[in-house]
Amino acid sequence: MTDERLARLALSQLGEPGSLKMAGLVAELGAARLHAELLGGTGARALREDVAARLEDIDPGRDLDRATRRGIRWVVPGDDEWPDALDDLDGSEPLQGMGRAPLGLWVRGPLRLDQLPSPVAVVGSRSATTYGTDVAAELSAGLVRSGSAVVSGAAFGIDQAAHRGALAGGGPTVAVLACGVDRAYPAAHQRLLDHLAECGAVVSELAPGRSPTRLRFLARNRLIAALTRGTVVVEAAVRSGALNTAGWAARLNRPVMGVPGPVTSAPSEGVHQLIRSGAATLVTRADDVLELTGAIGEHLVEEVRAAARPRDRLTRAQQQVIEAVPLVRPAPSDSIARTAGLGLMEVRSALDGLARRGLVEQLPTGWRLAEAMDGS
Amino acid sequence: MTDERLARLALSQLGEPGSLKMAGLVAELGAARLHAELLGGTGARALREDVAARLEDIDPGRDLDRATRRGIRWVVPGDDEWPDALDDLDGSEPLQGMGRAPLGLWVRGPLRLDQLPSPVAVVGSRSATTYGTDVAAELSAGLVRSGSAVVSGAAFGIDQAAHRGALAGGGPTVAVLACGVDRAYPAAHQRLLDHLAECGAVVSELAPGRSPTRLRFLARNRLIAALTRGTVVVEAAVRSGALNTAGWAARLNRPVMGVPGPVTSAPSEGVHQLIRSGAATLVTRADDVLELTGAIGEHLVEEVRAAARPRDRLTRAQQQVIEAVPLVRPAPSDSIARTAGLGLMEVRSALDGLARRGLVEQLPTGWRLAEAMDGS
Repeated sequence: MTDERLARLALSQLGEPGSLKMAGLVAELGAARLHAELLGGTGARALREDVAARLEDIDPGRDLDRATRRGIRWVVPGDDEWPDALDDLDGSEPLQGMGRAPLGLWVRGPLRLDQLPSPVAVVGSRSATTYGTDVAAELSAGLVRSGSAVVSGAAFGIDQAAHRGALAGGGPTVAVLACGVDRAYPAAHQRLLDHLAECGAVVSELAPGRSPTRLRFLARNRLIAALTRGTVVVEAAVRSGALNTAGWAARLNRPVMGVPGPVTSAPSEGVHQLIRSGAATLVTRADDVLELTGAIGEHLVEEVRAAARPRDRLTRAQQQVIEAVPLVRPAPSDSIARTAGLGLMEVRSALDGLARRGLVEQLPTGWRLAEAMDGS
Repeated sequence: MTDERLARLALSQLGEPGSLKMAGLVAELGAARLHAELLGGTGARALREDVAARLEDIDPGRDLDRATRRGIRWVVPGDDEWPDALDDLDGSEPLQGMGRAPLGLWVRGPLRLDQLPSPVAVVGSRSATTYGTDVAAELSAGLVRSGSAVVSGAAFGIDQAAHRGALAGGGPTVAVLACGVDRAYPAAHQRLLDHLAECGAVVSELAPGRSPTRLRFLARNRLIAALTRGTVVVEAAVRSGALNTAGWAARLNRPVMGVPGPVTSAPSEGVHQLIRSGAATLVTRADDVLELTGAIGEHLVEEVRAAARPRDRLTRAQQQVIEAVPLVRPAPSDSIARTAGLGLMEVRSALDGLARRGLVEQLPTGWRLAEAMDGS
């Protein structure tokens, strides 16, 4: 248990999920120092002046104890369970003023987030048709039978059908919420969520007890897209939130896929637009999805992967930054930013991620490549 | 009435539609000379020796008189009614050993083939679902209401629905047959075809009285694709003939479009494959089709089009050839072929097409650009 973890827990309750400002300050100062400075009132210019007062009301140790007693865990970057895929959010452009990796995730359920096998998002309309829910359930069952995990929200319609199908297929499934993981929204899904907490995972960046809002749903969508290798939209009317998730997947360079339906069906219109515009690839069954998410024949290449070099699977920003980090003589982050041609905040966030992977090290005079990297 | 027209009529009955050899010989020698040589037995090496005997049995003047009395006309290249779009077949690669423009077309009905407004092919499965036939009829009605003509076959299912929709929309519609235009195949479509002959057009490259065969259907498909600005496939199982028409459209650089359907419906599988592979663009309504076939707002640009230069709308081969034709001193076709980097037969066929458009002229020593072209 470090100060950093608790500071992240406290800070995560101060702002709204997806807040660029909060993520940027944490990337710049570190959570513990930001927390201390905000409480001390010295560095508060960037936030409102009542921040210290609000932060004093948050007792992260007590919150964590309470959550732990209820079987809810708090996962932050650097933890074994932290899913590296979320770091890609730090290297991608904001959408509707939101973005960046969450400060941490609350998790309820036995599934470990770092061990989800080839996770695929299956999302769509709340006002789905019978066709849509049948197809979503069938697709999700097929995905888990082929070894993938399913990730979705917890809404009526396609979300619910995706979990139902995954459970029927006997596979792992994860619900990502826009409220605390101890809450059921919609209330009718209390049993579904309890069941997922017993055999899958229920995840949120919102602290236990928090309610959902429209903006929290939008921020939540980025987590669904980032946690997975690709997003399948089954039915989505033209203004459906599922299209927002698809937008996040595209920003993160994950495949966006769409299941077509009758052209006479309004809930398929948004999907057809995605496919028609080239934003999504048409898929009709689990095999099509697996082909695009790269999960087919994965067991065959697993040994090769295990031997892969640590630089594999870096975000684009991390790749650019690591090329700019000196091998011998440390350089300060602003010099690295100039070399990499990236913004200072983005570079600091990427350096943090690289340090967590043991690829770079920080010395008093700046950053350089970690010794293990050299020549390997 | 020229010898060439009658010779084409006779020769068209000698081979099967789509015969590359026949089209090549006509392009090389001209129909009248080929006809005479085959009858005289001097140039018959390329065809079987019984050709002369078979050709003697064909009396093209009598055939034409009979057809004319029954309201059937014979349209050949150079005729006012000849649809230039068919010439694109001469510049495209063969498919399944067939290709090239037909020697001529038999036409029954008041519509003139050279005056079809923005024709669009609407094709699909014989074993269509109610969904498919409803969508095909609705789409075709929308197309003709927006000023397009519809072109299809005359089969059960999507073909029949396309004509029904076009007629309901009050617009022009054309059936292209794999048998004589005086025959009804399937027999149940006798009334439909008679109706089309009264208010639209029924077209075939097969002489009156001829029966359909599998190969004639494949050859017919190239005409549907070539006559139109784009092909829409509404429902097509994985081995449907409609996919063959789509293949021809792609070869001719015409847009291929597909209407999606439920992924649970076998007749939509072929369409979904086309879209998934990128061979077809997903369309859901007439406006989507018009956008791709360039017919939207056409009345707005009509004046610009009328003033378009004669070189517009040439086939790719014709464009390559015209660049190789000298401005002043005539060159023989083999020299033009070397300059253009094309085969001699292809070049001769392109030169014929260019001559019909008045773009090149043949002198005793070879070909050169027609005077009107120079500097315009």
